[in-house]
Amino acid sequence: MNIAILFGGSSYEHEISIVSAITMKKVLKKSTLTYIFVDADREFYLIDTAKINSKLFSSGDYKKSKPLILKKGGFFTEGMFGSKKVDFDVVLNLIHGRDGEDGKAASLLTFFSVPFISPRLEASALSYNKLYTKFLAESLGVKTLAYEHLSKNSERKIMMDYPVIIKPVRLGSSIGVSIVKNENELDYALDVAFEFDNDVIVEPFIDGVKEYNQAGCHTGNWELSIVEEPQKEEFLDFEKKYMDFSRDSQVLSADITEELKTGIQHTFKTIYDPLFRGSIIRCDFFVVNDEIFLNEINPIPGSMANYLFPDFEGMVERLSKALPKEKTIHVDYTYIHSIQSAKGKA
Amino acid sequence: MNIAILFGGSSYEHEISIVSAITMKKVLKKSTLTYIFVDADREFYLIDTAKINSKLFSSGDYKKSKPLILKKGGFFTEGMFGSKKVDFDVVLNLIHGRDGEDGKAASLLTFFSVPFISPRLEASALSYNKLYTKFLAESLGVKTLAYEHLSKNSERKIMMDYPVIIKPVRLGSSIGVSIVKNENELDYALDVAFEFDNDVIVEPFIDGVKEYNQAGCHTGNWELSIVEEPQKEEFLDFEKKYMDFSRDSQVLSADITEELKTGIQHTFKTIYDPLFRGSIIRCDFFVVNDEIFLNEINPIPGSMANYLFPDFEGMVERLSKALPKEKTIHVDYTYIHSIQSAKGKA
Repeated sequence: MNIAILFGGSSYEHEISIVSAITMKKVLKKSTLTYIFVDADREFYLIDTAKINSKLFSSGDYKKSKPLILKKGGFFTEGMFGSKKVDFDVVLNLIHGRDGEDGKAASLLTFFSVPFISPRLEASALSYNKLYTKFLAESLGVKTLAYEHLSKNSERKIMMDYPVIIKPVRLGSSIGVSIVKNENELDYALDVAFEFDNDVIVEPFIDGVKEYNQAGCHTGNWELSIVEEPQKEEFLDFEKKYMDFSRDSQVLSADITEELKTGIQHTFKTIYDPLFRGSIIRCDFFVVNDEIFLNEINPIPGSMANYLFPDFEGMVERLSKALPKEKTIHVDYTYIHSIQSAKGKA
Repeated sequence: MNIAILFGGSSYEHEISIVSAITMKKVLKKSTLTYIFVDADREFYLIDTAKINSKLFSSGDYKKSKPLILKKGGFFTEGMFGSKKVDFDVVLNLIHGRDGEDGKAASLLTFFSVPFISPRLEASALSYNKLYTKFLAESLGVKTLAYEHLSKNSERKIMMDYPVIIKPVRLGSSIGVSIVKNENELDYALDVAFEFDNDVIVEPFIDGVKEYNQAGCHTGNWELSIVEEPQKEEFLDFEKKYMDFSRDSQVLSADITEELKTGIQHTFKTIYDPLFRGSIIRCDFFVVNDEIFLNEINPIPGSMANYLFPDFEGMVERLSKALPKEKTIHVDYTYIHSIQSAKGKA
């Protein structure tokens, strides 16, 4: 199979998207990979798979690659003798953060009829925004931690007890996130978070809370990863998360009861189906007193959480054959015809 | 000012978008209009403003118009001697329903840095889906009617008392909507609704409920329309709504108390700001026992609800100068550089 890796984007996570993308070379060994880079200015480039490395981007040398145009049906190179379509079977959307996770990539690929693996528009819009994720979880009967929402212009005052964790609503990879132990630290943490977003979410910080990750997708059948207990210090800082995005080796299943595992898998399926059809996502859960809380949905997890699956490459291929179809809408101009008949003209 | 009217789309409301677009010629008299048509196959065409009429589309003759390519910075015609940008100051997104209201047009225009009047991505995703509109309203403390959500696969059973109204969650213009007076009528109404969408919302049907519409936008200052009491029979069927989309003459303000008017305006502002900045929307409210309930948000109302405003054309111009700016994200490859230094290569 020929898989187009779409990566980069106008995103705070542009660089980790490059790392995720390069990692795919080690993970998708049997497939042909076609690399499509979205630079920080949102120009598309076809990157030579043989030559891809991180320096190509940091040096700006990628600009010598072929520019691409996105049009109906795919990505095209433009030349003297017309445009030529780039050949691939499916796009794997690996743009982390803005452009990739917020619904823009899903919109573009859907609009131009390019088959892709990634959450669709609505799934992206709801999971990219941590506040909307709360709405979604609530509507599905999935528990989340209590929260408060602050906007850049709102009064800097919170009702819940310290310690709390402050997160920009629209970012991943721990960017702009702070743990706030008391009121004195609140202002600085908000300053940091508001650097990245106009909205932040405040949640209780539960020291030593048990955290478990479940990734998966639906390819006609459920394909769920092992349940991972992520290593963590207080929480992962950006640089550690960054290294995490290049992971390609298997990890061990968390040592949990069968009952908890079933509960986590059930919650994952409740969130995933049907909204996230067509995507491979990772849900991060907290467990407090045997109750499962959704912490966040990673619509495009680092290196696609490949290291949690026994047969990642096979799963990508199976998923590419089970993508949700957009409803066909037939436009037949019935009403315009009927008005024209009624009026004699229109 | 040169306003590009974007219309058509792969939508059940494709035809009423054409009607809305043509109506703009009568409404935006002082401006230069540039018509950009999205056909049912999602190909873009530059339509001659002098020649636009509904027959051009129903006959298929629009295909003789210049095809356009959407790229960074705008829409382009492609010719022997390279591509040429279509000149305009701002896009007015007039695609009703899918593609226009669901966030796809907002995504495309944002991604390619084309200034536009319309709800942005998140605002579109939340207002296009009537279920998500409930979530949004609740988070803002705005009341909505009680509801139940049914999916195509769920059991066809509702808990609330009859009569109820059944609506596909993702459509406007009353398409697929039915009033159901008793249990015997439920099945047929669901069949109709599920023709158009996999999800429906069920709400109590309140006979003779008072309905008021408020449109507006924020152009640096609030510009609110008059409050309209829409004429209605049981509810507007598609054909009547369709005619409604070609309205261009002023209507009278609803005869309501100053207190109710203030309440409606306040609720409108709560919903609009800041999520809907950059757009002209219409909110439809119910009033039951002096309480205001949000019925729905029309992210792209028929003919932009121009007939509710004293100076629609001036408002469009003011809004085009007060569009929200996307956050600039600076990509500097700091992390890749630091890894390269650490490793000696990357």
